[in-house]
Amino acid sequence: MKILKYLVVFLFVSLVSLPVFNLFASGDAGEVGGHTAFASTFLWIAVILIFAKVASLVEKVGQPAVLGELVMGVVLGNLGLLGIHFLDPIGTDSIIAFLAELGVVVLLFQIGLESNITEMRKVGAKAFIVAVIGVVVPFLLGTYLIGPWLLPDFAFITHLFVGATLTATSVGITARVFKDLGTLNSKESQIVLGAAVIDDVLGLIILAVVSAIATVGAVGFGLIGWITAKAVLFLVGAIVIGQFGAPYVGKALSKIHTGHGMKFTFAISFGLLLAYLAHLIGLAPIIGAFAAGLVLDAVHFKTFRNPKIATEIDEIAEKLPEEPKGLLQKISHEFSHKHVEDLIEPLSFFLVPIFFLMTGFNVKLESLFSGEVLLLALIITVVAIIGKVVAGLGAGKVNKLLVGFGMVPRGEVGLIFVMIGRSLGVVSDQLFSAIVVMVILTTLCTPPILTYLIKKEKNKSLAQA
Amino acid sequence: MKILKYLVVFLFVSLVSLPVFNLFASGDAGEVGGHTAFASTFLWIAVILIFAKVASLVEKVGQPAVLGELVMGVVLGNLGLLGIHFLDPIGTDSIIAFLAELGVVVLLFQIGLESNITEMRKVGAKAFIVAVIGVVVPFLLGTYLIGPWLLPDFAFITHLFVGATLTATSVGITARVFKDLGTLNSKESQIVLGAAVIDDVLGLIILAVVSAIATVGAVGFGLIGWITAKAVLFLVGAIVIGQFGAPYVGKALSKIHTGHGMKFTFAISFGLLLAYLAHLIGLAPIIGAFAAGLVLDAVHFKTFRNPKIATEIDEIAEKLPEEPKGLLQKISHEFSHKHVEDLIEPLSFFLVPIFFLMTGFNVKLESLFSGEVLLLALIITVVAIIGKVVAGLGAGKVNKLLVGFGMVPRGEVGLIFVMIGRSLGVVSDQLFSAIVVMVILTTLCTPPILTYLIKKEKNKSLAQA
Repeated sequence: MKILKYLVVFLFVSLVSLPVFNLFASGDAGEVGGHTAFASTFLWIAVILIFAKVASLVEKVGQPAVLGELVMGVVLGNLGLLGIHFLDPIGTDSIIAFLAELGVVVLLFQIGLESNITEMRKVGAKAFIVAVIGVVVPFLLGTYLIGPWLLPDFAFITHLFVGATLTATSVGITARVFKDLGTLNSKESQIVLGAAVIDDVLGLIILAVVSAIATVGAVGFGLIGWITAKAVLFLVGAIVIGQFGAPYVGKALSKIHTGHGMKFTFAISFGLLLAYLAHLIGLAPIIGAFAAGLVLDAVHFKTFRNPKIATEIDEIAEKLPEEPKGLLQKISHEFSHKHVEDLIEPLSFFLVPIFFLMTGFNVKLESLFSGEVLLLALIITVVAIIGKVVAGLGAGKVNKLLVGFGMVPRGEVGLIFVMIGRSLGVVSDQLFSAIVVMVILTTLCTPPILTYLIKKEKNKSLAQA
Repeated sequence: MKILKYLVVFLFVSLVSLPVFNLFASGDAGEVGGHTAFASTFLWIAVILIFAKVASLVEKVGQPAVLGELVMGVVLGNLGLLGIHFLDPIGTDSIIAFLAELGVVVLLFQIGLESNITEMRKVGAKAFIVAVIGVVVPFLLGTYLIGPWLLPDFAFITHLFVGATLTATSVGITARVFKDLGTLNSKESQIVLGAAVIDDVLGLIILAVVSAIATVGAVGFGLIGWITAKAVLFLVGAIVIGQFGAPYVGKALSKIHTGHGMKFTFAISFGLLLAYLAHLIGLAPIIGAFAAGLVLDAVHFKTFRNPKIATEIDEIAEKLPEEPKGLLQKISHEFSHKHVEDLIEPLSFFLVPIFFLMTGFNVKLESLFSGEVLLLALIITVVAIIGKVVAGLGAGKVNKLLVGFGMVPRGEVGLIFVMIGRSLGVVSDQLFSAIVVMVILTTLCTPPILTYLIKKEKNKSLAQA
């Protein structure tokens, strides 16, 4: 906990020294310094990264870093309630919003890279069942239970929107927890990741249809079919082309010895291009980034990180007896190979915490200050949780609770849905607040529950062994 | 050149497939996909990174990558002249502009990290002489030669602005060339880097004074003294505090074994904070980032990249004869230590090419289409080059031409100056174009000239050896 002390001192000194520096600042010189608009964003990025990193120290007490980042975001975003408005500009900075969005794209790209497509194919059928149950049950509960029961004054289209909002799992939170706890390659994790992608697609189809009903009053089966077809085509197409093309790409890129970031550039550009293409055909950019990661996982990069040392080690190894020889050859391999994941990691250190801290930051706690809204929010949250935990039952012979709770978080996709509903005029401000609270609560409750379930699972397998 | 072929095919397929994907895109589904505003920026980042990387292949023919990136930027930014407007939105995307600015901040931070402060202190006096000559000569030539001779219809304040614009060296271009050619630690390189920082400060003081004259008509010695004092205080203060504080920071950070990017976050946040503080006291953010790099260079990070393997290597080494033992211990050290530079590098792969490509992109070739403007531009350029090459004479017993030409490029700082002049109404549109052309030409001519001089120098020392 000494580290914590150092960091708190550093933070304190940094923040206290800001007003001192302000004394030095003079109006006209400030203008002369150039790019005035961007300099404050530099400050906000530094503030976000430092606070996120301090918050991630919850790992020391066994909680995933993402929970710390979310809670820290909620705290920083609501300092206004205590009369502290120093950080308010962060919430309206469009560049910070972009970096957060880029962060979730990079995260899904990374998760795609770390997901094993062969493993995922094994759980494909189960993931599909989990996804379908996890979309149908919350949609029906939202539309036909919460709607008529709690929102009787609203039209049927509003009820449909409540249902649609409950469908899409936010894979980011769950994936971070699985990643933080090192169980990204477990069966449960693979099912959840697969199902989350599928239910994103299903959710987007439902939302496209519901939006069409809200705007034109009705929608034909042709449009539904078309939206479905292009989503499936995109994901399957990317994966199939990737599987066939990967060896050629890998071969071509292995020939580049420049070490000037060619592989990094190729990888990240490919991820961003597929994110854009996904957007272009009406899917969320994160789906494209995930598909790009799946494709590139099959490409094996050689980066010749330090080929000279690797060659020297190999020469020594040749002269040695069997036992140290094997180890030295392993070391030589480590020196000459580097997976593209290692290259992406620092970018993810930079961008991903911005996404999670800002997700918390945008939570407005005062929306909870009405008893009625609070009750509505809690009931919607319970329904949201039940709808996904039930879906876990379709996962077969695995830890069903773990799969079910893994599907619970509704993050950015749910928020996008409800924002579209509000812009179409079918979601009121109170309902908006309630749904935002549901997104927060499902997001906040998932990391500790998953951590508990995973640790229990680990202890169980330890006891069996 | 096989790589080039692969990349061109990849680019071609990517660009050709865009309209095909457009067929899939349907209006309402596009809205549903979310964050519409950001998705196109993902595309532009990918396009910029890929084209920049293709352009950097000029390295294969012995030119520094930065020249390729700048020329590629000029080409892409002026495709409109050929009736191709596909890429026009890049020029007005404020997020791309921010990423470019962040890129130059990260670059100067990296250069600060790689600069050895002890080495720099050795060349401090020479750097100061070079900087002063390199500011005074172009300023006087601009104000008292070009002004009355070529711009007789303009007021004295306009002549002062021309002079001020010619003062500040853009250290980014030169540093990239030195970095690309691996001579960042030569005496010449250290003098140029030191002098560029000093003349940035001197240039900013001149500009602050000239701006004050333009707005209030006159300015007292008190303000000049104040602007100077805080700039010097900032740089010297950061360096002194850094030298004393570094061992403690290093010790504290070495205790963190999490491997979750704590050092990365600390380093980059520190760089951004100092960039912001520099801005706050009226200096360019890049000066703060450079100072932060100088400070952190003194901090020695241990990252325990793979401590288990390092221990295993050490154990094997113990049992071996002297010769392979030493090598193995070196290897073990490489496995357990990692400098903060390595952590920053992928971020720099991502951001720095955006800065250089966009510098080229923002050049409007049509501003050259008038004979009069072209002549004015060429004369200003010649004066700008002479003013700095003369400064090289103050560098003592080193390659004076190399130092002089190293100071030639006027980049973003010159552009900021002339934009302020235009906003104050003392710089006309023609003069603006001419100065922009000067910035381009000094920037474009420097990399090949420096590359030639450095290679000549290397051959000379090879011949002597």
